[in-house]
Amino acid sequence: MFNYFFWVIPFASILALIFAYVFFKQIMRESEGNERMVKIAGHVRKGAMAYLKQQYKVVGLVFIGLTILFTIMAIFKVQNGWVPFAFLTGGFFSGLAGFFGMKTATYASARTTNAARKSLNNGLRVAFRSGAVMGLVVVGLALLDISIWFLVLHFFIKEADITHKMVIITTTMLTFGMGASTQALFARVGGGIFTKAADVGADLVGKVEAGIPEDDPRNPATIADNVGDNVGDVAGMGADLYESYAGSILATAALGAAAFLSQGAAIQLKGVLAPMLIAATGTILSIIGIFAVRTKEDATQKELLRALGRGINLSSILIVIFSLGALLWLGLPNPWGIWLSIVSGLVTGIIIGKSTEYYTSEAYKPTRSIAESAKTGPATVIISGLGTGMLSTAIPVLTIVLGTILAFMFAAGWDLQNISMGLYGIGIAAVGMLSTLGITLATDAYGPIADNAGGNAEMSGLGEEVRRRTDALDSLGNTTAATGKGFAIGSAALTGLALLASYIEEIKVGLIRIGHTTLQLAGGSVPTSHATLNNFMEYYHVNLMNPKVLMGMFIGSMMAFMFCGLTMTAVGRAASKMVDEVRRQFREIKGILEGKADPDYASCVEISTRGAQHEMMLPSFLAIIAPIVMGLLFGVAGVMGLLVGALSTGFVLAIFMANSGGAWDNAKKYIESGVLGGKGSTAHKAAVIGDTVGDPFKDTAGPSLNILIKLMSMVSIVMAGLTVLYSLL
Amino acid sequence: MFNYFFWVIPFASILALIFAYVFFKQIMRESEGNERMVKIAGHVRKGAMAYLKQQYKVVGLVFIGLTILFTIMAIFKVQNGWVPFAFLTGGFFSGLAGFFGMKTATYASARTTNAARKSLNNGLRVAFRSGAVMGLVVVGLALLDISIWFLVLHFFIKEADITHKMVIITTTMLTFGMGASTQALFARVGGGIFTKAADVGADLVGKVEAGIPEDDPRNPATIADNVGDNVGDVAGMGADLYESYAGSILATAALGAAAFLSQGAAIQLKGVLAPMLIAATGTILSIIGIFAVRTKEDATQKELLRALGRGINLSSILIVIFSLGALLWLGLPNPWGIWLSIVSGLVTGIIIGKSTEYYTSEAYKPTRSIAESAKTGPATVIISGLGTGMLSTAIPVLTIVLGTILAFMFAAGWDLQNISMGLYGIGIAAVGMLSTLGITLATDAYGPIADNAGGNAEMSGLGEEVRRRTDALDSLGNTTAATGKGFAIGSAALTGLALLASYIEEIKVGLIRIGHTTLQLAGGSVPTSHATLNNFMEYYHVNLMNPKVLMGMFIGSMMAFMFCGLTMTAVGRAASKMVDEVRRQFREIKGILEGKADPDYASCVEISTRGAQHEMMLPSFLAIIAPIVMGLLFGVAGVMGLLVGALSTGFVLAIFMANSGGAWDNAKKYIESGVLGGKGSTAHKAAVIGDTVGDPFKDTAGPSLNILIKLMSMVSIVMAGLTVLYSLL
Repeated sequence: MFNYFFWVIPFASILALIFAYVFFKQIMRESEGNERMVKIAGHVRKGAMAYLKQQYKVVGLVFIGLTILFTIMAIFKVQNGWVPFAFLTGGFFSGLAGFFGMKTATYASARTTNAARKSLNNGLRVAFRSGAVMGLVVVGLALLDISIWFLVLHFFIKEADITHKMVIITTTMLTFGMGASTQALFARVGGGIFTKAADVGADLVGKVEAGIPEDDPRNPATIADNVGDNVGDVAGMGADLYESYAGSILATAALGAAAFLSQGAAIQLKGVLAPMLIAATGTILSIIGIFAVRTKEDATQKELLRALGRGINLSSILIVIFSLGALLWLGLPNPWGIWLSIVSGLVTGIIIGKSTEYYTSEAYKPTRSIAESAKTGPATVIISGLGTGMLSTAIPVLTIVLGTILAFMFAAGWDLQNISMGLYGIGIAAVGMLSTLGITLATDAYGPIADNAGGNAEMSGLGEEVRRRTDALDSLGNTTAATGKGFAIGSAALTGLALLASYIEEIKVGLIRIGHTTLQLAGGSVPTSHATLNNFMEYYHVNLMNPKVLMGMFIGSMMAFMFCGLTMTAVGRAASKMVDEVRRQFREIKGILEGKADPDYASCVEISTRGAQHEMMLPSFLAIIAPIVMGLLFGVAGVMGLLVGALSTGFVLAIFMANSGGAWDNAKKYIESGVLGGKGSTAHKAAVIGDTVGDPFKDTAGPSLNILIKLMSMVSIVMAGLTVLYSLL
Repeated sequence: MFNYFFWVIPFASILALIFAYVFFKQIMRESEGNERMVKIAGHVRKGAMAYLKQQYKVVGLVFIGLTILFTIMAIFKVQNGWVPFAFLTGGFFSGLAGFFGMKTATYASARTTNAARKSLNNGLRVAFRSGAVMGLVVVGLALLDISIWFLVLHFFIKEADITHKMVIITTTMLTFGMGASTQALFARVGGGIFTKAADVGADLVGKVEAGIPEDDPRNPATIADNVGDNVGDVAGMGADLYESYAGSILATAALGAAAFLSQGAAIQLKGVLAPMLIAATGTILSIIGIFAVRTKEDATQKELLRALGRGINLSSILIVIFSLGALLWLGLPNPWGIWLSIVSGLVTGIIIGKSTEYYTSEAYKPTRSIAESAKTGPATVIISGLGTGMLSTAIPVLTIVLGTILAFMFAAGWDLQNISMGLYGIGIAAVGMLSTLGITLATDAYGPIADNAGGNAEMSGLGEEVRRRTDALDSLGNTTAATGKGFAIGSAALTGLALLASYIEEIKVGLIRIGHTTLQLAGGSVPTSHATLNNFMEYYHVNLMNPKVLMGMFIGSMMAFMFCGLTMTAVGRAASKMVDEVRRQFREIKGILEGKADPDYASCVEISTRGAQHEMMLPSFLAIIAPIVMGLLFGVAGVMGLLVGALSTGFVLAIFMANSGGAWDNAKKYIESGVLGGKGSTAHKAAVIGDTVGDPFKDTAGPSLNILIKLMSMVSIVMAGLTVLYSLL
């Protein structure tokens, strides 16, 4: 077949899936603990699966609707005929990854608790290996989908011009990202609303009104809160990164097909394969990294963190070395430049993660000064948390700017006008950042599992020592979660930039499909198939004096705020229903607060589920419809303005919200550690309010913006044909 | 002389200044009331003037520094030699307007209180007439500065080609906006920090800790709080709108010189004069409107609002009619199209104002549901306030988008490619929106005067009836302030767009100055002096695939957040110093809480002053330096990206912050009116926290963004020569 390099990709995919299966079996061999532990884990698992089933039902309907739309578009030749199928598989594989990952997580929590009864290291192993199942399933299924489609399209697409055939293949595959995007949208938004409605509701009535501790079994919302960790932080986060991962690989492949177009079919194929090969290499290295995460039986918390860090660092260092090897082996032109682009992406991700840690960890000044401001009450906590969050956007933005410029310049051979190679460099930087997703996602998914393990220990009334160990595991999870969030946002920004560039490739293919074979430009006419990105910018007047571009940008910026506003108010509404329900149970179920009667956990899960399903519809609808309407009204220039506006504002807003939320959370924990009056003090009460405000910031609105950024690009890409044919202005 | 139409402008200017003087004299003839009232007003006046003096000292130093820089640039021919002088007068006149306006306001507050002892209508007349002094001084001085410079440059600039001479005149005049911008920056940021440090500090210790009411004379920060209303809401708001007003007229004149370049000197002159003539007409109509604000002696609050509305509506309707007359009289080509652009601007302003009212008034659902959420505590108040503020960005953004597109299309004769005429249309829409600034600013400045009058009544221990009347006046001021804020933001956005376009005109002049007389483009070479905006976009690659543009936009978006973060945390820091001082006085001055000993008001004013002066330096420095650094690193493309990013994100962010803040304020007032438990209830306590968070939102960070948007454009314009000569990439 075309190139033996290709086979590395399905190989890595299968390998990842095999190891995921092995890890899953290992976990299942562990005992789930005593009867009470099994019962509680069962409640959480049942709730989580019920939610997922309900969500997939809703998503299924949306998929049916969109598939019909794409089929109609294919029939009228507005899009090509493969799109409906690519769309469906993208969504299906993403959903499957979420299902496997979350199922494993819900099986793992009680097992982690039980393992922690023996030792900290045992707990870490179980929790981390089940996180690894999620990580490996995500990368494995993504690479599998990519491999299969690449083979299928290669065999079935009939096109004499081989270089043009590759352009068609890669732009078609790109649309499978739309399926992953749509799935991710509902998973992130729905999951985010679910988890925070439960969390805020549980805290407001339980902690504040009734004065009972977190995860207390007397609180009816506590199971829903634990379910939320799974549906929001495991399934939601997984779907988000699945999308970034697949999106960045596919966008870079499309950019590669365009950038190496004039260098002949053989080189072009290498350009297309390079991002896939880097991702496959990273997957194998992730597995190695996962095995490196182990520590001694009587490990301290610091040693635990070091153990996790060792796994990630090992994979990162190895990918730096092996990606260069892969590029040299592949024989792509300018391998050193492209390699430096990959390194730029990796370093960008690491710096953004570190900056997130600096701004949100209680070990540093920003969070401590927020805690300090709690002394003068909730208002000053909120003001300083918001202010700090806004200031915290500077380093990530400057890092992304520097990283992107460097990735561009390295790949472009330091020539600013070599745009298509430069953009390929940005794409491959995103791929580089995400290449070791197998292990980074493992450390992310580990967090909620440890959190649930702690919940299980608390609710099962296990001893002080076990609770101390699960707390250590949980607190570790908070640090990795903060880094993971920075990482998810950073990769969304780079993927968004790559998708923006590949949008023009899609427009190009769309123009050719409708027989628009030459572009009339000021400097003469150019064949569409060989037009450069700059040619398209001139042709569609995509410049900053075009009111369509400017107005698109205003709307894009507004969309980011709207989206946050909708998810924030959704959490508020759903949480207030939860508050009413918990109050009702406290009032109506006799003996509940004395621990003599069981609360009705299921009704709280039900309320969060219904709230999430109901509230996710409007923001999701807006995100899908906005680029379509914009394309029909303002054409390519308007769409690009919209995407860029949403990307730049959304990125900054997402960092602000994630960091404010994280800092409030840890400012509260810092006070709980005994400073500034400790638990129960006025400062602590103020900090709890800050934390509650931060919940939807960091876990609903902020992460949802990652999806918005990518989804709007994906919708534009799929709808490119419609925009080309029917735009009004 | 060149055109008799011109003389309308100095005429309107002088007329405005005469009426301002007449109104001032009228107010001064009123009695300031009893000894205690005079004493309190004296404290406030002294504090306000001390602050202004201190601020002007700091600003003076900055002006000296910048003037030296501009002189050096002029010597090295990087800018033309008139710039240092234009810059200085722009700053001087803006400062003068602030001085007169604030002096009047501080003389008027006790007089308003005293007049309210007789009747509501008397109070309204005094407060509104003193607001009118501010309004008329601002427009009068702005038009005076414009008239003088136009005459001076016309006589002194030697240039054979008359159409090119007009381009030089208008682009040189534009740089006088930089002086107004710099002045506005310090007035808005410094004033905003002052007022909210005092307000938050006074509330936290006074209302929350000591449990004494607002404006209680026992609270040492209460005078500082009243001083703050003057320096923030009178002087700050005045300088902000002075800048928008002058900026929009000057930018539109520069765009007119370019748009009508090819139609000969006579038509070009008309294009340049049109915005000035519209502004002059609006000024005369504002005076008429001011006289229409009167009501019967025993007026209710509703009738008061109607009286104010009548004045504004009358001016608005008259400007719609008279601007068409002015355009027809002037004989500009396409008068109907340009007139429709003006109407678009006016309608845009009105809709944004109405939307602000809808989202922030307790009469409507959004604010009421925020009040509702106070039942579950401060966290839900904050979440729903933030969420609602984010959602409230939709209508203003869509309105600006629609208004801008229409203004563009009307002026461009419905041809999207007629860019220079279209942008002229956007500029003149901004002028239209601001043309009746004389009266709209009067209603804005009226608010803090009424607020201070209430404070004076409270502190002087006047009867229930007087206090009820000043409350009515004050509450009216809140409604007009909300509308005024929407208006200030809307005009900043349109002015920002006009400045963006005129930046390219400045680049053009800069290129010609250094002898770069032709542009090499794909379609052949074009003489620089006749190059279109699209030519420049192509020449500098100002398109959305240029990484310099994209990275500039990321940084621009980040700048908006940074700026907010800096001002928010500044308020937090300054307020906490105020808290410490008030606590100290409560502790150390015996008998202060029993009303037996006088608090030390001056030390609180001093703390706010020092805090404001100290804290305004960093954000101001960043706003000035960012476009310069960006120009030197990334050139014209990077600067335009920066400006557009800051404009789109800043506009949306500003609306979000203003509306969240306004809604919290009124949600609190709504509860205080007796619903949801009324004053002292849990809901009320939660709402007070929301209001405190909202203070820096609506009065510091939000309004400061207006300045950021315009100032960064102005700096870019003045530094255009530097960017053209020395940019790195």
